[in-house]
Amino acid sequence: MSSAYVIHADFYQTDREGMALEMPSSYLLVRDGRVVSLTTSRPDVSDATFLDWSGLLVIPGLTDLHVHASQYQFRGLWMDEELLEWLNAHTFPEEAKYKEISYASQAYRIFTDDLLHSATTRAAIFATIHEDSTLLLARYLEEAGIAAYVGKVNMDRNSVPELTEDSEASVMSTLSFIEKMKDFKNVKPIITPRFIPSCSDWLLDELACIAKERGLPVQSHLSENQSEGEWVHSLCPESVSYADAYRRHGLWGGVPTIMAHCVYSMEAEPGLMRNEDIFVAHCPDSNTNLSSGIAPARWFLENGVNMGLGSDVAGGTTLSILRAITDAVKVSKLRWRLVDQRFRPLSFREAFHIASRGGGAFFGGVGGFDEGMEADLVALDDSVRKTAIKDLSLEERLERHAYLAPEEPVTHKMVKGRLLF
Amino acid sequence: MSSAYVIHADFYQTDREGMALEMPSSYLLVRDGRVVSLTTSRPDVSDATFLDWSGLLVIPGLTDLHVHASQYQFRGLWMDEELLEWLNAHTFPEEAKYKEISYASQAYRIFTDDLLHSATTRAAIFATIHEDSTLLLARYLEEAGIAAYVGKVNMDRNSVPELTEDSEASVMSTLSFIEKMKDFKNVKPIITPRFIPSCSDWLLDELACIAKERGLPVQSHLSENQSEGEWVHSLCPESVSYADAYRRHGLWGGVPTIMAHCVYSMEAEPGLMRNEDIFVAHCPDSNTNLSSGIAPARWFLENGVNMGLGSDVAGGTTLSILRAITDAVKVSKLRWRLVDQRFRPLSFREAFHIASRGGGAFFGGVGGFDEGMEADLVALDDSVRKTAIKDLSLEERLERHAYLAPEEPVTHKMVKGRLLF
Repeated sequence: MSSAYVIHADFYQTDREGMALEMPSSYLLVRDGRVVSLTTSRPDVSDATFLDWSGLLVIPGLTDLHVHASQYQFRGLWMDEELLEWLNAHTFPEEAKYKEISYASQAYRIFTDDLLHSATTRAAIFATIHEDSTLLLARYLEEAGIAAYVGKVNMDRNSVPELTEDSEASVMSTLSFIEKMKDFKNVKPIITPRFIPSCSDWLLDELACIAKERGLPVQSHLSENQSEGEWVHSLCPESVSYADAYRRHGLWGGVPTIMAHCVYSMEAEPGLMRNEDIFVAHCPDSNTNLSSGIAPARWFLENGVNMGLGSDVAGGTTLSILRAITDAVKVSKLRWRLVDQRFRPLSFREAFHIASRGGGAFFGGVGGFDEGMEADLVALDDSVRKTAIKDLSLEERLERHAYLAPEEPVTHKMVKGRLLF
Repeated sequence: MSSAYVIHADFYQTDREGMALEMPSSYLLVRDGRVVSLTTSRPDVSDATFLDWSGLLVIPGLTDLHVHASQYQFRGLWMDEELLEWLNAHTFPEEAKYKEISYASQAYRIFTDDLLHSATTRAAIFATIHEDSTLLLARYLEEAGIAAYVGKVNMDRNSVPELTEDSEASVMSTLSFIEKMKDFKNVKPIITPRFIPSCSDWLLDELACIAKERGLPVQSHLSENQSEGEWVHSLCPESVSYADAYRRHGLWGGVPTIMAHCVYSMEAEPGLMRNEDIFVAHCPDSNTNLSSGIAPARWFLENGVNMGLGSDVAGGTTLSILRAITDAVKVSKLRWRLVDQRFRPLSFREAFHIASRGGGAFFGGVGGFDEGMEADLVALDDSVRKTAIKDLSLEERLERHAYLAPEEPVTHKMVKGRLLF
């Protein structure tokens, strides 16, 4: 498919070092899915479709490094509980419903439609243990044009009966799921052991083999909550840390690996975090709602740990990564004030950089308008907020939009150079 | 004006003790501005207008105990700073613009329109030092039908020159403002010394006299930020605490008094907080954005300290008190986890109770549907969120709406029994 676009708009991004790059009233040339140039004068090309988005604020598409599609239906409910009770009382019973393809169909259509209209162009997604409904989710995302990793979840212990797999069946179903996804273009499978308490040693070993043999990425949870950490310690007394429990089962790098949360990783497993394959999915809203704590984002930055943002619906209440940006700023301020003044708060710009290039690195490098980058972008209409303030910079416009209207549907969206709307 | 309404809707409130009262598909009879009854069967009255709001969720109108109307235009901007630098760099220059009545007119119309369509029916508002533009704000609010206290701000030291009053002129202008407001029905004046650093001892003494002689309420700021607290100590070395500085100038009760923030009051002035005239305006969003900290809301509850919620725009980014409710829950969880496990987090219901009856007590007792209460209410349409989840309680519907769509315009609003839309 050969296709070219010239987009006229106001462009904001950060560069590789995290500095702001503002290009008001400029022209982005996209060809065959990739960025060719971003210039202040209109490029002289005859075969490109011209898109006049004058006045709209265009930013690189954002990455959601951690989201549970199967929890989206109960977002914003039952927020007065902590992680482990919340899992048992609400999350597991809800996820069990996805055995029924009719429920999954209804729910995943809503999820896909809302994700499509958000600022997210890339996502790493947990479904449930159910192969058929997970495949359905993957198909909806593929049809919508979103670039995503989708994981059939593996769980063979410590869950409700309806959500507990036979260990061998869990492996077989995972292999079957991978096989059925081989012709997908934008949506790919990801190995998804839920977390240590949900997976037997044998299952973890098998999943690690599958990931390495097939070069598939991995996603799981790490050091989210103190009670969870104690539980992992009792389940794996030989491991010196939660991360070490993954490591002992071959699930600590070798392939790109997302570990969601890492609230306690600075104390629990600092050495292991400096691994080029490991990506932290920082989920500030969820970690607040479930009373988990505040992940040390500044420490990750200072130590060169890969990091993106995650919505973690439904521990988080919204798919909006623009909202996750301001949430990351907010909790970093509280952490600085209340916990540890060695680590200064994140600026808005830093949090944006984490949400765009930070998470985008997991997808082979997206999140900016560099020449040759896959063209992921969204256009925001920030004109609707009434104000008497004039003459804002593009960064100020973006900051205000992220604080005031993070969940407003985006006006246009392009993924890998394909214009979705 | 004699007017009566029967409203059919789903009603949610908390009772005086904070227990949830759910009345699905019920009938509220309002007459002459007050609640007559809330019943499951339709009251047999012939002279009342019937309002069929079936399926809408009706809650008591909420109170915003602390908001700066003059900062609304820059909400969501410049959030990477702390209080004192933020005041000098952005807030004071913006407030100086309100000397121009044309700017004030444009800005206060936007503020009033947005407040009108929020869930807030009562508000305690800071304007600026400028008498004419403050009066304009009061007029806009009166015309819109919102019940509010509006304060002409007093500042005669430690500000930018454009925002520094001559001390005697400050008093004279305050008296003039009070006089000009004497025929207002729903909007009333409130004595508003900005905070200790902005007011000379003489000015504080004079304002205390005016408040007591005329029985006017007072609003100011207290113990928001650590640097601010140190500054107050250096300005008032004879005072043992920030609150004591107000007390020494006659500004600690005797009339109903709102003190915004009180982040450090549990440590700094615990004894003084137990005063029936003092109301804490808890402003979780602002205290997060300005890196101030987290106020000890549970301690206030346990010690019988009056408390409501404040948006504190533009330290806070939104006028939505529904959002302030979820913010109060969130920061209470982080405070519990990170600071002090003696004080368990606020539940959603508790935070709602604070936002409705808690703040409403400052206005003589609103925030519920008790017989004889002034009829303040808003109707929320929570049907627009797509979800596959069924059979929610009214409290669950409200929780979800507060988390997912707190800034959505309300569908209907009534203040003191007057239907605004």
